[in-house]
Amino acid sequence: MAYYILDESKIISYLLSIDTLRSFFGTQKLEVSEIGDGNLNFVYIVRAVDVPKRALILKQAVPYLRIAGEGYPLSRERMTYEIRSLQIHNALISEHVPDVLYADEAMSVVVMQYLDEHIIMRNGMIDAVIYPDFAEHMGKFLAHTLFKTSSLYLESPEKRTMMAQFVGNSELCALTETFVFTAPYMEHETNEIDPLIEAEAKALREDDDFKVAMLGLKYRFMNQSDALLHGDLHTGSIMINAKESYVIDPEFAFFGPFGFDIGALIANLVMSWVSHFERSQDRDYQSWILETIAVLYEKFEKEFLRLWCEREQSALMEKGFIEGDGLAKYQERFMQDILQESLGFAGAKICRRQLGIAGVADIRSIEEPESRARAEKMALSIGTHLVKTYRSMRTITDLTDYLKEMR
Amino acid sequence: MAYYILDESKIISYLLSIDTLRSFFGTQKLEVSEIGDGNLNFVYIVRAVDVPKRALILKQAVPYLRIAGEGYPLSRERMTYEIRSLQIHNALISEHVPDVLYADEAMSVVVMQYLDEHIIMRNGMIDAVIYPDFAEHMGKFLAHTLFKTSSLYLESPEKRTMMAQFVGNSELCALTETFVFTAPYMEHETNEIDPLIEAEAKALREDDDFKVAMLGLKYRFMNQSDALLHGDLHTGSIMINAKESYVIDPEFAFFGPFGFDIGALIANLVMSWVSHFERSQDRDYQSWILETIAVLYEKFEKEFLRLWCEREQSALMEKGFIEGDGLAKYQERFMQDILQESLGFAGAKICRRQLGIAGVADIRSIEEPESRARAEKMALSIGTHLVKTYRSMRTITDLTDYLKEMR
Repeated sequence: MAYYILDESKIISYLLSIDTLRSFFGTQKLEVSEIGDGNLNFVYIVRAVDVPKRALILKQAVPYLRIAGEGYPLSRERMTYEIRSLQIHNALISEHVPDVLYADEAMSVVVMQYLDEHIIMRNGMIDAVIYPDFAEHMGKFLAHTLFKTSSLYLESPEKRTMMAQFVGNSELCALTETFVFTAPYMEHETNEIDPLIEAEAKALREDDDFKVAMLGLKYRFMNQSDALLHGDLHTGSIMINAKESYVIDPEFAFFGPFGFDIGALIANLVMSWVSHFERSQDRDYQSWILETIAVLYEKFEKEFLRLWCEREQSALMEKGFIEGDGLAKYQERFMQDILQESLGFAGAKICRRQLGIAGVADIRSIEEPESRARAEKMALSIGTHLVKTYRSMRTITDLTDYLKEMR
Repeated sequence: MAYYILDESKIISYLLSIDTLRSFFGTQKLEVSEIGDGNLNFVYIVRAVDVPKRALILKQAVPYLRIAGEGYPLSRERMTYEIRSLQIHNALISEHVPDVLYADEAMSVVVMQYLDEHIIMRNGMIDAVIYPDFAEHMGKFLAHTLFKTSSLYLESPEKRTMMAQFVGNSELCALTETFVFTAPYMEHETNEIDPLIEAEAKALREDDDFKVAMLGLKYRFMNQSDALLHGDLHTGSIMINAKESYVIDPEFAFFGPFGFDIGALIANLVMSWVSHFERSQDRDYQSWILETIAVLYEKFEKEFLRLWCEREQSALMEKGFIEGDGLAKYQERFMQDILQESLGFAGAKICRRQLGIAGVADIRSIEEPESRARAEKMALSIGTHLVKTYRSMRTITDLTDYLKEMR
């Protein structure tokens, strides 16, 4: 089908032309409403009028940045990568990825499960809501999606075939390369720097050690093809409630370094922890966040190693090549490397959110300017520390201990 | 055009159907002769009968391993990658890559410059022939092909577009993964181990430190997409004379780690050096080889850095991001990493040639068994040393000094 932009008037006939969706609804009477909060894409809820619980999400990419308008072109093929990633991740760990009922790469459309009992996690964390199972859920999500798309699980041709499906996602990768690893640490028109932290921003622009470390992380992001990443795994990409966690919006998906998704999630937890010094001042909530960071990472590591020990044959690990102490030694080094890299990427993600385009609401929506600046400075100090020292980290508690000593 | 296998009777009409080739020869009277030494492919020389200097090479891949016959299937799409790599490398550094006059991916055919005044470098080195400009030539070839296909030169979408052209070359990558990094160091039916070095082979199979280091190199080969590699850059892939050096046969081309091609070349020079203790016992020739290793690497490094300093803007290096001492510090670390990795890969290449399928003629064709075994043991000892210690190497003379102290 040739691409055209759907609007509310065209959506119903489009959906009813698709057998599986017509039978899902079981009625011709549908109602469509747009969800206003898509930054990049148009997102609609479609419901059966008579049975409102019978509802789906339809998401369509347009050839520009939705939030900015047609003057900001962005190729709609980003939806192709989102569809492929959703389908792969759903097959690997369906309990944390929405079901895809229909996908149409030519139309840049995906139709998926409507998560009506969940909210965006960032909003929940701003309100200091505890999610008791989140760490377990996301530790498992990370272990399964990363391990099972890596050379530790796939055979070599399988991995390259999967890589071929994502190697074209260069436009969104280039956005990350610019806005996470580069622009925030130099004079750049896109930066959004709070005047109250200009001195700190300037110090970072002049810090060669920081920039050398940042280049190392950027190089790794660009050239290390460990596994299929979500590519933008912050708390705004998680739909959650007390019992369930779903990862959405993987349009930045590509084959990159193991630590990038893990680091992104840790960074967003750390920024929430920072923000609550100024917001709730709820020490129990902050303790829960630190505990969550540790449990999340430990769950990831344990599950990743469990999957590895179960997998006797893969591209990297020919059955019988190495066993016992030798294998344990290799695994120890391998996991150490993932930990360090995760903390380095977490640092980059924290820094960029204070200086670059697209800050996080946790901090940027603190109303009182001095209060907001305190949070920004604290976050920047943590991020800088991580970027400059991640190669000396040994366990996830090196991070949480460091945070506990900050105030 | 649908694929069919050319033979001597069909080649002339095939060539004359192509405008550029018909006008190249300027005559209908052509003669065809097969070159017998292709392992993977069929290779023919085509000449104008009246003007024998007017000659070209036609190379066609068949859907099996030519040397082993139709019982050993190997997809003919390997020629697609050879064609693409030849064209890219020729555009980057034409003086060291044959001209491609015609390429036909559908027919798995390439037609290229006939190097009638050159021989395969391995054969020259077996005869202790000195090639005075080889180090300069290949240092430059490596610098240009690696730098200009990396994130230090290309913009991010350009690099991913180029990667997409090679990500399908999984069959040949898998051969390297198995036969360079895995099979030689375990019990494997494909190994070809001289009974006189069985004790050394067994020791290696039981050496966990060696295997952990080898896994690190294998992982890097599989997941580090620094630059477009030749993928099989040994002295049998170089056509040479006293004045010119050409790199041929890049069917293993893919995006991999910087050090792999460099290491392959160093490994083959080291093995020639080893072999001449048993062959010529020509110490001057051996000194030339060690000098060549050092000059080759230093030329590569100097040229790579020169290209880098010329390039102010690339995917990695946004103009103005870092300059002066900061840039110099990053470059120093970067080049150190390439050196170390090159020596690690050199070690892997040396070891596999002693134990696995496809040894090198330099050593395996030494007729006297004790003499051959001495060379194999010496090579294995060097290779093992490199694999286990490459991370502590600082300059290329760390290798040449180590070799000088061996006898």
